[in-house]
Amino acid sequence: MINKLVEKIRKTGAPIVVGLDPMLAYVPDHVQQKAFAEFGETLEGAAEAIWQFNKEIVDHVCDLVPAVKPQIAMYEQFGVPGLAAFKKTVDYCKSKDLVVIGDIKRGDIGSTSAAYAIGHLGKIRVGSKEYVPFDEDFATVNPYLGSDGVNPFIKVCQEEKKGIFVLVKTSNPSSGEFQDRLILERPLYEYVGEKVAEWGAQCMGEDYSYVGAVVGATYPEIGKVMRKVMPKAYILVPGYGAQGGQGKDLAHFFNEDGLGAIVNSSRGIIAAYKQEAYARFGAEHFGEASRAAVEAMRNDIRSALDQK
Amino acid sequence: MINKLVEKIRKTGAPIVVGLDPMLAYVPDHVQQKAFAEFGETLEGAAEAIWQFNKEIVDHVCDLVPAVKPQIAMYEQFGVPGLAAFKKTVDYCKSKDLVVIGDIKRGDIGSTSAAYAIGHLGKIRVGSKEYVPFDEDFATVNPYLGSDGVNPFIKVCQEEKKGIFVLVKTSNPSSGEFQDRLILERPLYEYVGEKVAEWGAQCMGEDYSYVGAVVGATYPEIGKVMRKVMPKAYILVPGYGAQGGQGKDLAHFFNEDGLGAIVNSSRGIIAAYKQEAYARFGAEHFGEASRAAVEAMRNDIRSALDQK
Repeated sequence: MINKLVEKIRKTGAPIVVGLDPMLAYVPDHVQQKAFAEFGETLEGAAEAIWQFNKEIVDHVCDLVPAVKPQIAMYEQFGVPGLAAFKKTVDYCKSKDLVVIGDIKRGDIGSTSAAYAIGHLGKIRVGSKEYVPFDEDFATVNPYLGSDGVNPFIKVCQEEKKGIFVLVKTSNPSSGEFQDRLILERPLYEYVGEKVAEWGAQCMGEDYSYVGAVVGATYPEIGKVMRKVMPKAYILVPGYGAQGGQGKDLAHFFNEDGLGAIVNSSRGIIAAYKQEAYARFGAEHFGEASRAAVEAMRNDIRSALDQK
Repeated sequence: MINKLVEKIRKTGAPIVVGLDPMLAYVPDHVQQKAFAEFGETLEGAAEAIWQFNKEIVDHVCDLVPAVKPQIAMYEQFGVPGLAAFKKTVDYCKSKDLVVIGDIKRGDIGSTSAAYAIGHLGKIRVGSKEYVPFDEDFATVNPYLGSDGVNPFIKVCQEEKKGIFVLVKTSNPSSGEFQDRLILERPLYEYVGEKVAEWGAQCMGEDYSYVGAVVGATYPEIGKVMRKVMPKAYILVPGYGAQGGQGKDLAHFFNEDGLGAIVNSSRGIIAAYKQEAYARFGAEHFGEASRAAVEAMRNDIRSALDQK
């Protein structure tokens, strides 16, 4: 799956992942009202609204980008119906040949981590039958519990040719509270990055490993260092746009081959119609606004890479 | 809710939480076959089997223990139907007046962490209506992302009078890879414990805080230290029984008042009928085997506390 991701990034020329994080406040009124008319102001109605919102955006961007990243929290907040909308979104994106990164940030130990890995990337046996429960292509994983938490994911990745992105340095302001703690003069995230390189060596694709890393766009100098610590890890870069990361900051996250990183934008794309720059589209045409925002982001990243 | 938990621990004399982590392999054949007869060998069939299994165990232990801890991964591995069984389990346990600790180990940032907090502990607005999506009483939280990830949970806890347990030192063998790293001669988990004490000061119940901590039974010496670092935090102690923790190791996790800790056992209770000690009950009477295992665990902990 890492090979497919790299190939699609090459083909689209857009190392971009669209974060499908549909807060209800982003969903235009006409979409909400239609869903509520059918299902009432219920969890099912909210789930229908975010699913229809996603579908429209995916239809407008699927030829431009290699991948999407649904953030499961935004679905989980609507309970079981919300998670059904998550599953529908995953399936629909895969039918459009998009690579699906489940932003689930799970992490537990032993058989529990295995259960998450199976649920999101693998197959589960029920009696004599096998099922693929959520079936994303990649998942994000929290490393706080160490190898016991990550290895069950790696095992499933090896079986299914799927991948993970391990949280190394997150994009948020307080990420340093623990991640930046100095251990023998080196920050914790460097140790995590070294483990990512070690875990990744066990499952290599053609040029990159199935085990990638998350490093926030908001810390470009750290990106530069981590790029060297984990040369074969694809870096998933959140924090572009709304969180403050800019195109010029991103060059450090890429290798000399122009590959090695994929940049996420969520709000900046899916709620583009709410920004002044795309207000001309109006709420009715929010999908077109998202498409225009993807094109602008692609150009911003390209010019940053050209200047590298 | 921390007050209710303390009160129930006092009343039952059992600082025990039953981990409802129903692997399909634990569910006796007759329960599986009945579920498959109704729903087929499907995800729905598996979900029905684990739900019926849980119900039988809960019916047999609910008067003995204050709390249960369903591990959401074991439900999530069966996809959306599995999560519906999780919700049914939460609701049923609450109807039996048990305190429900959702072992979800979620952790993200800002609005995403808020979405998890709302989904599991809070209320979500849909149009003019409000819903409680999963509605556990407590949730476990991963601290790797720092205060940005934890504060949204604390906000919901303050509003709803609910609580969290923050992972400080987990029970698994590789937990030390990152958690034990020395920073100015003190391990990372101590810094996390200090933050737990700081976060907890913002939402105190009568004697204990709504913000608790997870410290594994497998590291009793660390329990001793962390008990002092976080005197007002309830400590959720996993790793008893199957993972190797024993009653005599547990005394360190408790305060002088005999309170301050609650010990989890999952496999040791819910799959008790598979152990030699309880084989006399047979698979047909697995609920009674679980009850006997709870009684034995209660006696083991009591005698450890009496010798303290």
